[in-house]
Amino acid sequence: MEQVSTNRSFGGEQGVFKHASAATGTDMTFSVFVPPHEPGAKMPVVWYLSGLTCTHANVTEKGEFRAACADLGLIFVAPDTSPRGPDLHGNPVPDDPAGAYDFGLGAGFYVDATQPPYAAHYRMWTYVTEELPALVAEHFPVDMARQGITGHSMGGHGALTIGLTHPDRFKSVSAFAPIVAPGQVPWGHKALAGYLGEDRALWRRHDAVALIEDGARLPALLVDQGEADPFLAEQLRPDLLRQACETAGIDLSLRLQPGYDHSYYFISTFMADHLRWHAARLA
Amino acid sequence: MEQVSTNRSFGGEQGVFKHASAATGTDMTFSVFVPPHEPGAKMPVVWYLSGLTCTHANVTEKGEFRAACADLGLIFVAPDTSPRGPDLHGNPVPDDPAGAYDFGLGAGFYVDATQPPYAAHYRMWTYVTEELPALVAEHFPVDMARQGITGHSMGGHGALTIGLTHPDRFKSVSAFAPIVAPGQVPWGHKALAGYLGEDRALWRRHDAVALIEDGARLPALLVDQGEADPFLAEQLRPDLLRQACETAGIDLSLRLQPGYDHSYYFISTFMADHLRWHAARLA
Repeated sequence: MEQVSTNRSFGGEQGVFKHASAATGTDMTFSVFVPPHEPGAKMPVVWYLSGLTCTHANVTEKGEFRAACADLGLIFVAPDTSPRGPDLHGNPVPDDPAGAYDFGLGAGFYVDATQPPYAAHYRMWTYVTEELPALVAEHFPVDMARQGITGHSMGGHGALTIGLTHPDRFKSVSAFAPIVAPGQVPWGHKALAGYLGEDRALWRRHDAVALIEDGARLPALLVDQGEADPFLAEQLRPDLLRQACETAGIDLSLRLQPGYDHSYYFISTFMADHLRWHAARLA
Repeated sequence: MEQVSTNRSFGGEQGVFKHASAATGTDMTFSVFVPPHEPGAKMPVVWYLSGLTCTHANVTEKGEFRAACADLGLIFVAPDTSPRGPDLHGNPVPDDPAGAYDFGLGAGFYVDATQPPYAAHYRMWTYVTEELPALVAEHFPVDMARQGITGHSMGGHGALTIGLTHPDRFKSVSAFAPIVAPGQVPWGHKALAGYLGEDRALWRRHDAVALIEDGARLPALLVDQGEADPFLAEQLRPDLLRQACETAGIDLSLRLQPGYDHSYYFISTFMADHLRWHAARLA
């Protein structure tokens, strides 16, 4: 693991790191904020999964999480959203959808692809749920018994599906404007078909609403959603999550925020709320 | 004035605006955060002047000022750092220093240039002290009797020199890692010689330490400076400001911050402190 940069901030250290990933077969970059702490202390960690087109840098620069993490004693980890490299797919694929903003680079959708040519590198599920946690546990003062997960948009989808799949690992799960039902919206159709193929039964493990319908449970869930978000009605569909949680008896706090859009101006506004919510459950 | 964008954030509105500037003869872009407020209310304003290479966008995205501005009821205005355009200098000038990061585009140094070819457009002093305040007063709910000014690095130089020149206008002045004595450091030599010519007597109006030596006064001054700032010893020289303020009897609060560098990770850490300091003086 190589340290790309480190900056003192809010009494802690904001670092950016790079390592050769076995899961993706590429170099992967991620950021970690370690708050001020006593020597030897182990701290709870919140994973933040980013949305389409983002790298670790978007939330690291614009997320405004460090003040709250320093105050609450939380480590904050932000992975990248896909493998990256000059030639991830071998020879050019005719009409390769990976040239789009919503598939391929910056759009790994937190799944392990099974379809060629993506299966070789697009293994973000394994990367985020296995390889990166092991690396973080080895190198940072993290109490791995106290983990929370959150994310934005595609990363909200990742946080929900990973949280629902690993309820023993994540004591707190929240999301900002998540894609709650990729099996029912255009972004999800394209990504899940492209990475996993056309058998929709296989999509259900990567669809928060389907996971809940199929029996996955969480004690509680916090979701913020801007009412002026241009992707609300077609891609995000918080109504579907509300219905699934009501049916399943999951304590969903879905906060519709008037006037807020899909940007980091929205995320940063409610970041401290989410971190306090996580901290209360990771205490 | 054209609205480039607006985003709801922390209960207020973060806007970006563009206008044709008479001072610079170019289009100029700036950002304004208006916090939540009662209809008809007029609020104090803090001007933030940015450093070398920056536009309005750096602090707008990374400055973490909105939470405090919303809490304190402050309007926050961030101008650009120079005129911009494809051909500001007429025909190419041999060895034009404006191709550098520390002169020309992104490096207006908050002076009105007198030297060709820069005199035609590089008139940031007039822009920031006259034209933009008039525009802001016309279009935003600002109480122009309650103005504060701050800035970073080159923008800290701008905040100090403008604040020292207009003590009646600015009730509060602070800076992050300012260039306190451009007449005594390489960045300043290059900029002041390039924009104002070689007569160093003319530089003193644009040098905070020289202004204080020449009799300018402020009731108080807050300056944060990272001790791990790579520009500290050669370009920033807070020791010169300390000495000038001691001699002049100016109440300088100079806080040397161990481990902090010159980046927005430093600025954002102490932004809320500065805004509270301004708000207390603008109440």
